[in-house]
Amino acid sequence: MPTFTVFKGSEGGKIVKSQTTKPDLTDDQVLIKVTASGLCGTDEHYKGADIVLGHEGAGVVEQTGPNTKFLKKGDRVGWGYEHNSCGHCEYCLTGKEQYCPEREMYGEANLDQGSFASHAVWKESFLFRIPDELTDAEAAPLMCGGATVFNALHSYDIKSTDRVGIMGVGGLGHLAIQFAAKKGCDVVVFSSSDSKKQEAQKLGAREFVAMKGKKELDIGRKLDVLLVTTSAPNDWSLMLPIMAPTGTIFPLTVSFDDFSIPHLPFIQSGITIQGSVVAARNVHRHMLEFAAQHKIKPVLMEFPMTEAGITKAMDTLRDGKMRYRGVLIPQN
Amino acid sequence: MPTFTVFKGSEGGKIVKSQTTKPDLTDDQVLIKVTASGLCGTDEHYKGADIVLGHEGAGVVEQTGPNTKFLKKGDRVGWGYEHNSCGHCEYCLTGKEQYCPEREMYGEANLDQGSFASHAVWKESFLFRIPDELTDAEAAPLMCGGATVFNALHSYDIKSTDRVGIMGVGGLGHLAIQFAAKKGCDVVVFSSSDSKKQEAQKLGAREFVAMKGKKELDIGRKLDVLLVTTSAPNDWSLMLPIMAPTGTIFPLTVSFDDFSIPHLPFIQSGITIQGSVVAARNVHRHMLEFAAQHKIKPVLMEFPMTEAGITKAMDTLRDGKMRYRGVLIPQN
Repeated sequence: MPTFTVFKGSEGGKIVKSQTTKPDLTDDQVLIKVTASGLCGTDEHYKGADIVLGHEGAGVVEQTGPNTKFLKKGDRVGWGYEHNSCGHCEYCLTGKEQYCPEREMYGEANLDQGSFASHAVWKESFLFRIPDELTDAEAAPLMCGGATVFNALHSYDIKSTDRVGIMGVGGLGHLAIQFAAKKGCDVVVFSSSDSKKQEAQKLGAREFVAMKGKKELDIGRKLDVLLVTTSAPNDWSLMLPIMAPTGTIFPLTVSFDDFSIPHLPFIQSGITIQGSVVAARNVHRHMLEFAAQHKIKPVLMEFPMTEAGITKAMDTLRDGKMRYRGVLIPQN
Repeated sequence: MPTFTVFKGSEGGKIVKSQTTKPDLTDDQVLIKVTASGLCGTDEHYKGADIVLGHEGAGVVEQTGPNTKFLKKGDRVGWGYEHNSCGHCEYCLTGKEQYCPEREMYGEANLDQGSFASHAVWKESFLFRIPDELTDAEAAPLMCGGATVFNALHSYDIKSTDRVGIMGVGGLGHLAIQFAAKKGCDVVVFSSSDSKKQEAQKLGAREFVAMKGKKELDIGRKLDVLLVTTSAPNDWSLMLPIMAPTGTIFPLTVSFDDFSIPHLPFIQSGITIQGSVVAARNVHRHMLEFAAQHKIKPVLMEFPMTEAGITKAMDTLRDGKMRYRGVLIPQN
């Protein structure tokens, strides 16, 4: 019966250290010793709930269940938002298991464990080997942030010849710039000010647009694709005129409000607004391979995985000072 | 110099009979004697503007310009929303010329003529032969209404095995039901009351849902596709739970408000919101062939094409009493 340390949210938002005990490993379950966890905006949202935080995990296999087939003790693995799916529905059978109606996802299932923890128990079939080219800390933010932006660029017929706009240079945006640039796309970054311009260009942006105070945008060739990675509401009167006809908009960030866009301009241009969440396992694997091949890595700020460290990391994220993804490192 | 009768909108919304004179035919221009015109919600919108109304035209070729190649005097032809495009941009070159940045569309260009008229002059390359199986009056509403719903069902990988929801049984909806049913789809119709149930079933609906007073919907298998053909705002809290993951929503009606939908449920289900307008010429031709093959015809209410007749037709449409598409017939 594995017993391990976890960090939970609580009413009021204080981070609480606790213990979880799981039954002995069955089926293809794997016990993982956590070595790093990314910090995502979603964790901020769940910090007021009595659930274990963290869904960008990386670690080392410590023990394997009776029906595991591929992993062994010592293997480096990561996991993300999804923990399980039914395996027999239309979505599972077509490699889109993140849309399985019986999926087990972070925040909805398995609330007694997460990646803010010393250990976790997950099914082998929802774990991903970490390529040698990536450290555990580098791999962790790819497990949700990386998967989310790669899935948008990979799974919807986005072409290397497309002009791709990335709105927001944060945890997701700074990875999206790299994936899109390495895919060959012409990358235009939209940020509020010029403060992240040099960094964005270093990551692969060919053009950088500071939005603040702008009443109209002129970027020449229009955008075939726009990945929205900012949580701030968008001024579509600025952005729609620079979308190419039949372009695709991905509103990637989690919001509890409505998504709202001027009706007529969007239908008259044949725009697609594409809902998309994390990545199916097949796409997730391609993402890790592609990141390894092209040396795509998150820019990290490390924090100790303690109550104080998690709190400080969340403060940094909330204050808009994370450059660009926080990673929590267990202290044991 | 062809001179002909046209019917225009005017400030205040009164329909005004007028005359248009066009230069002698050049290039591939064709002079058409109008025999029928559909009446669309868009005409209602433009009746307050000083422009000729009507964009669902059918008629007979009366004269052909020097560079016409395919049409001859006496041929039955129709035309729709689009009158011209540049022919050399990315969209023209990929069979999506309705998104050509230099497109000439109803309401934006050629404001001195339309299908509420005795005649019109259009380019041969934007005219469509009317199949023998359809009368001129039957063909007219297919030129915009038919093209719009067929394009959604045809151009976005909608499969015959899909469950397709049609919201609204009106000019567009009653055609969408037929096209979707003949394509083999499992068609579910959503209407405010039961009043159109029998008609919808006759047109091909396998299930009919009266929405009024419903707090929750249970339709069994969820919708892979939803065509919204009502101008009323949708209650997405009712409709989103019956959308299948990775389903597609087409907001087909013209609205000058924002399109608004709960953000999180739509992205978490990987829903696509697809802007789409009329049909490219290639798709338009397939639509006419398919309608002829399957005897898909609009259900018509005929009105005389006079100031009084047009006014009465518009009143009927506005009062929600059109069953299901108005057609104006010239009286000369």
